[in-house]
Amino acid sequence: MNTLMDMTTDLGAWLSNELTAVSGVMSDHLINKHEEVNVVCGELAAYKGKMLRPSLLLLSWRAVSKEDAAPMAVRTAAAVVELIHLATLVHDDILDEADIRRGTQTLNSLRGNEAAVMLGDYLLSSAFHLCSTIKNPDLNLLLGGVTNTLCAGELVQLSHRNNVDLDIDSYFQIIHDKTASLIAASCEMGSMLGCSDGSFVSVLKDFGKSIGTAFQIKDDLLDLLAKRKDIGKPAGRDLEKGKLTLPVIIMLAQNPSLRPDVRAAMGNNDRVGLHDLLQSTGSIDAAFGVVENLVDSAVLGVKGVLSSESSMQLCKLAEQLKRPF
Amino acid sequence: MNTLMDMTTDLGAWLSNELTAVSGVMSDHLINKHEEVNVVCGELAAYKGKMLRPSLLLLSWRAVSKEDAAPMAVRTAAAVVELIHLATLVHDDILDEADIRRGTQTLNSLRGNEAAVMLGDYLLSSAFHLCSTIKNPDLNLLLGGVTNTLCAGELVQLSHRNNVDLDIDSYFQIIHDKTASLIAASCEMGSMLGCSDGSFVSVLKDFGKSIGTAFQIKDDLLDLLAKRKDIGKPAGRDLEKGKLTLPVIIMLAQNPSLRPDVRAAMGNNDRVGLHDLLQSTGSIDAAFGVVENLVDSAVLGVKGVLSSESSMQLCKLAEQLKRPF
Repeated sequence: MNTLMDMTTDLGAWLSNELTAVSGVMSDHLINKHEEVNVVCGELAAYKGKMLRPSLLLLSWRAVSKEDAAPMAVRTAAAVVELIHLATLVHDDILDEADIRRGTQTLNSLRGNEAAVMLGDYLLSSAFHLCSTIKNPDLNLLLGGVTNTLCAGELVQLSHRNNVDLDIDSYFQIIHDKTASLIAASCEMGSMLGCSDGSFVSVLKDFGKSIGTAFQIKDDLLDLLAKRKDIGKPAGRDLEKGKLTLPVIIMLAQNPSLRPDVRAAMGNNDRVGLHDLLQSTGSIDAAFGVVENLVDSAVLGVKGVLSSESSMQLCKLAEQLKRPF
Repeated sequence: MNTLMDMTTDLGAWLSNELTAVSGVMSDHLINKHEEVNVVCGELAAYKGKMLRPSLLLLSWRAVSKEDAAPMAVRTAAAVVELIHLATLVHDDILDEADIRRGTQTLNSLRGNEAAVMLGDYLLSSAFHLCSTIKNPDLNLLLGGVTNTLCAGELVQLSHRNNVDLDIDSYFQIIHDKTASLIAASCEMGSMLGCSDGSFVSVLKDFGKSIGTAFQIKDDLLDLLAKRKDIGKPAGRDLEKGKLTLPVIIMLAQNPSLRPDVRAAMGNNDRVGLHDLLQSTGSIDAAFGVVENLVDSAVLGVKGVLSSESSMQLCKLAEQLKRPF
């Protein structure tokens, strides 16, 4: 199931087994007494990805824990962060009017926005319910804070649609809030369940924040550069929905006179024209450079204090973000 | 602010003061560091109603507590149930494609479905976050269970749109899940924070369940019978959205041959025709009869074990549901 790392190693086999257990926790928790709910939840199977967030939570736990087998609280927390992620996918697809995700039809296109709104709510609620079963008030508080941040990030992003004056600090704040915060929380939760040393927790949280930010920039670059067949969903959606991404913001910071061109490309949904502009100004390379810096800083932070096999694996996963597509 | 009861009594003044404090807890908790979020939240003012759920929570607490002043946990829990209620209103309006609520424009019509989806999520998340600050794992678990039930109820209702074969048991299950469960939980939370006697908690929870069910039937009757100006939103939405309500279900159970007429009235959105059918078969009176029975049973349950001023007030509030419009 897990394609994030080599599964033939002992650690890879461990992670793969744990992720199978986490999937079991998730699906058991989603089972409802009403068959109508189970039918809609059944369609979520198509949304299943590489389980990045549970993987980071599990590896962060193992990076600081003295135990080998993840206790139930860790598996449960890993299921919680994936449920939150699934909820955001279902609601994001409504916001993006997306028809296709991971090569198959989205929930909103299959069953309408109404069912997609309610399914997203059901997932969000199930995540909180499942988190509450751990009976650790700190975890609940952390989760509530993170989901507030996620929603605030989306609301702020919405309010900046088609705003070519969006500055780079606001952009970083938005992608931190809507993406990096949950990835950081995954690393934080895993490590806080694995040890009581606040400095390890803080280092792993920062690691998650940096790679989460890099991950979102890479995702935006993918939307700009990839072909539909490569990413299992239509490319160029960011432009279409008026979302400014890092290469565009870098370009406009260095060449403010290009603002009317960007506005025109957005108005005409001219992906090729925008791409040519970004390429000729070196802005795509500059954005890749930001990804590299974020990954380097994340890896440096972890290697400074941890040297377990799991922490090395976290660094390897981070390095993968540097690869071109 | 509170128009549910006479505020000139000592108890009325107490409730009114407490509700002001609860509103303060809510608005303080919703304040976000991003002004864009505060602007959207600011538009929620128009959604403010009589604060039924916090009132029931506060009165249930006082009905069993030996104290006079509600501690912070009680006010916080009261704010939590109102936030959950607000979240469901915002998302329900998307499902119902509603333009008007309480006489003003809905969030979805003002700012689009996208912002309404995210604002509903923000409210849901804020409710869980706020509940987590009480640091009572049982409350968190209860809340997660209730919101799961709410969402499941909406999903089941959606799957039965335009289903004229919906039976009465399924109908009662749907309105329990989507409405009565949160009202029952409000009474349950209030009483469990006020005493440790499980039998009082159980009686007040059952009270909430009965009046919550009666409340939803009354709301459906209002949609069928009222004029727009009386309810601050367009009437006849249930018919328009293919929702079967109690009078229709009662009529079809007694007169199965009227199924094609109901189907035709739904297809043509013929509210007057449906109303005439229901009136001539006595189905509207029968539905009012169900409301009366539910209220009587709720009141009987509470009066059997409690006799405080607050418990009497809960019974008075229940009796109000018997009134015609």
